[in-house]
Amino acid sequence: MRAVDIIIKKRDKKELTSQEIEFFIQGFTNGDIPDYQASSFAMAIFLNGMTHLETTALTLAMAKSGQTLDLSGIVKIAVDKHSSGGVGDKTSISVMPIVAACGLPVGKMSGHGLGFSGGTLDKLESIPGFRADLSTDEFKMQLKEKGIVLTGQSLDLAPADGKLYALRDVTGTVPSMPLIASSIISKKIAAGAQAIVLDVKVGLGAFMQTLDEARELADLMVSIGNLAGRKITALLSDMNQPLGCAVGNALETVEAIELLRGRAPKDYYEHCMHVAAHVLVLGERAKDLSEGRAMAEKSIADGDALEKLRVLVQAQSGDAEYVDDTSKFARAKYVEVVPAPRSGFISQVHARLVGEAAVALGAGRAKKDDAIDYAVGFLIHKKVGDKVEAGEPLFEIHANDEAKLADARAAVLLAYAFSSEFVPPLPLFYE
Amino acid sequence: MRAVDIIIKKRDKKELTSQEIEFFIQGFTNGDIPDYQASSFAMAIFLNGMTHLETTALTLAMAKSGQTLDLSGIVKIAVDKHSSGGVGDKTSISVMPIVAACGLPVGKMSGHGLGFSGGTLDKLESIPGFRADLSTDEFKMQLKEKGIVLTGQSLDLAPADGKLYALRDVTGTVPSMPLIASSIISKKIAAGAQAIVLDVKVGLGAFMQTLDEARELADLMVSIGNLAGRKITALLSDMNQPLGCAVGNALETVEAIELLRGRAPKDYYEHCMHVAAHVLVLGERAKDLSEGRAMAEKSIADGDALEKLRVLVQAQSGDAEYVDDTSKFARAKYVEVVPAPRSGFISQVHARLVGEAAVALGAGRAKKDDAIDYAVGFLIHKKVGDKVEAGEPLFEIHANDEAKLADARAAVLLAYAFSSEFVPPLPLFYE
Repeated sequence: MRAVDIIIKKRDKKELTSQEIEFFIQGFTNGDIPDYQASSFAMAIFLNGMTHLETTALTLAMAKSGQTLDLSGIVKIAVDKHSSGGVGDKTSISVMPIVAACGLPVGKMSGHGLGFSGGTLDKLESIPGFRADLSTDEFKMQLKEKGIVLTGQSLDLAPADGKLYALRDVTGTVPSMPLIASSIISKKIAAGAQAIVLDVKVGLGAFMQTLDEARELADLMVSIGNLAGRKITALLSDMNQPLGCAVGNALETVEAIELLRGRAPKDYYEHCMHVAAHVLVLGERAKDLSEGRAMAEKSIADGDALEKLRVLVQAQSGDAEYVDDTSKFARAKYVEVVPAPRSGFISQVHARLVGEAAVALGAGRAKKDDAIDYAVGFLIHKKVGDKVEAGEPLFEIHANDEAKLADARAAVLLAYAFSSEFVPPLPLFYE
Repeated sequence: MRAVDIIIKKRDKKELTSQEIEFFIQGFTNGDIPDYQASSFAMAIFLNGMTHLETTALTLAMAKSGQTLDLSGIVKIAVDKHSSGGVGDKTSISVMPIVAACGLPVGKMSGHGLGFSGGTLDKLESIPGFRADLSTDEFKMQLKEKGIVLTGQSLDLAPADGKLYALRDVTGTVPSMPLIASSIISKKIAAGAQAIVLDVKVGLGAFMQTLDEARELADLMVSIGNLAGRKITALLSDMNQPLGCAVGNALETVEAIELLRGRAPKDYYEHCMHVAAHVLVLGERAKDLSEGRAMAEKSIADGDALEKLRVLVQAQSGDAEYVDDTSKFARAKYVEVVPAPRSGFISQVHARLVGEAAVALGAGRAKKDDAIDYAVGFLIHKKVGDKVEAGEPLFEIHANDEAKLADARAAVLLAYAFSSEFVPPLPLFYE
């Protein structure tokens, strides 16, 4: 088998066998197949597409390109929840304690953020001491003993995916459905997931800008997940505006904690209940969504979910007092409430612009090694569909630098759009 | 400007500007743009194509990626003749002395052969002493003084093309019209050509297998040549069977010399007259093709063309006695005449199979550094349309090794096909 013949076959729109795909991915991973062949292959895939069977073969080949995590024997069903990334998306920090409190153990390897879309680990690291660098043994032990764990990758999961992604980024082959879908699912499979709830974001602050694209990606991931023998549910959720109010690491973690006390913005609460119900059903703890939702709500009312978060934070060396007293979180030097410049209905809070403004404040990384300022960010008081009077609080800036504060004010004001006519609120989920 | 944005633009089927194409080729040539971006770009070009304007920009960018030859001041019009390569194609060795004898100076940088399609320099090097490594100054001097020169590349002509071709070869992006056309024309322009006669071969022994493909390539090259300000004529000639009778370096050189004495196979003679007439017209020595042809025929009848070949060989240190006494050429140890296995009409002499059999005998190179055996090859006595009786001489093998001779016999017999019905001869030119 020769790499060039596999490239030519895809170039000529023929379907590749799983042997051919595995040969290519293995060779690429171990360096036998050079980058210039992989990039030409990626462009051929980009332009000619892949069948679901080919995409499944690609996913499995990447999943087994490195180490894999085996959670059988530790949990009955290894469930995972994956969001395609957005602004203000702190869902995992609320949902994992909820489902764990409902008796479904959950262990998740998550990532740090890059660009305008935040990372769950960065948010949790706003709690002093919190360790996101557990070893694989620590991961398994904690999952077994505490029923909850959320850490960074200790294993070299799906290295082919990492290598291919780096190449795609500089060769114009990122936005390809089969490449995106296989990238996401391969990492989940390598991390041992048997059942996965996918939260595919759609809108201005998401990778998928249109519902059609998001639906196509969701359907593809469900299809290849099933072909690979995994249970998968895909949700399509709105990411035109930030989720909830908080954007920024400490602010978001506080909002996630407040949810576990029953005090959260309504959109974020509804989002979490829906995702939690799906995870509980897929993990076979609830027989249907309404039972799952009732269990999730009860775990909050009883304080069990909050207790699970305490357990998580403590188990990973974080200061659990932060869970009970959120005033302990780092607070920015400057907090400014920005009033509405006019009256009317909010018709847009452009998620991507808000996310980029948060990165500019220091909440995220433009480059991989940038330091993060946990305290900075925004509280978005008014969202799409809200009626405001001129002068009412529109949003709040938390900044540690006056010049950056001024920039952020201008940027977020630009993210807003107003209408004199009634504007309906955005849906939380599509379909 | 960023390379990845240029790749994305082509990926998305948008037309690139000449600035973008030049940026990419310059960066690729000097190493700023890595191979993995160039191969992804090449695949995007392969699958999405290029307009004639884009292809012209690519051609000019590659032409000026290295050194260039300027022949103005030495010749009135720098003419070149380029064949897309085939089996038994010794045309340059006959045509260049003819047109030079007609008063049109011609200087050509040619190449060695690789694979089943022979190289003009290898053929001439079957004359002992013949130097194909003239310096640029020697090239110019000889062109000025003798009016004829045929040597290898002394300059680093169009290095971007060489680099890109090596990459295309291993990334599945060779058979792309804009990439092939720009590769050919860029080298001609870098070598100083102002007027070019292109002999595009079509058929079983050519790169272009169908007339449609060959016509598309020819039209594209004429179009980009004209857009680049050059005079171009493209001919489409048959390469289903070898041209003439001789295949193999010394055998072909002898056939080319014999043509200048008026003793050549009819197809090869007609081919040369047609090409020479076009070169004389494009070089403004003849007002039309019939005048060009008459001049060419006269140059043979007068012995002027043969004298020009003597001048060429002598000027480049070759033994000119070979021109007058072709029995001096190296002769193979074994010469076997193979009889026709049956009676009937010849319906095929598969050019590629004959070419590959010649390489196997030692006449060509499978790899770049293989040595060449000048003496070996074939004389193809019967060609498509000929009527043969079983036992009549079909072809002749010249070999230096008995085992190779047996292989060659089997291989060339397989290249032949017979019909009981009348078969018309193949055309020499199409359209």
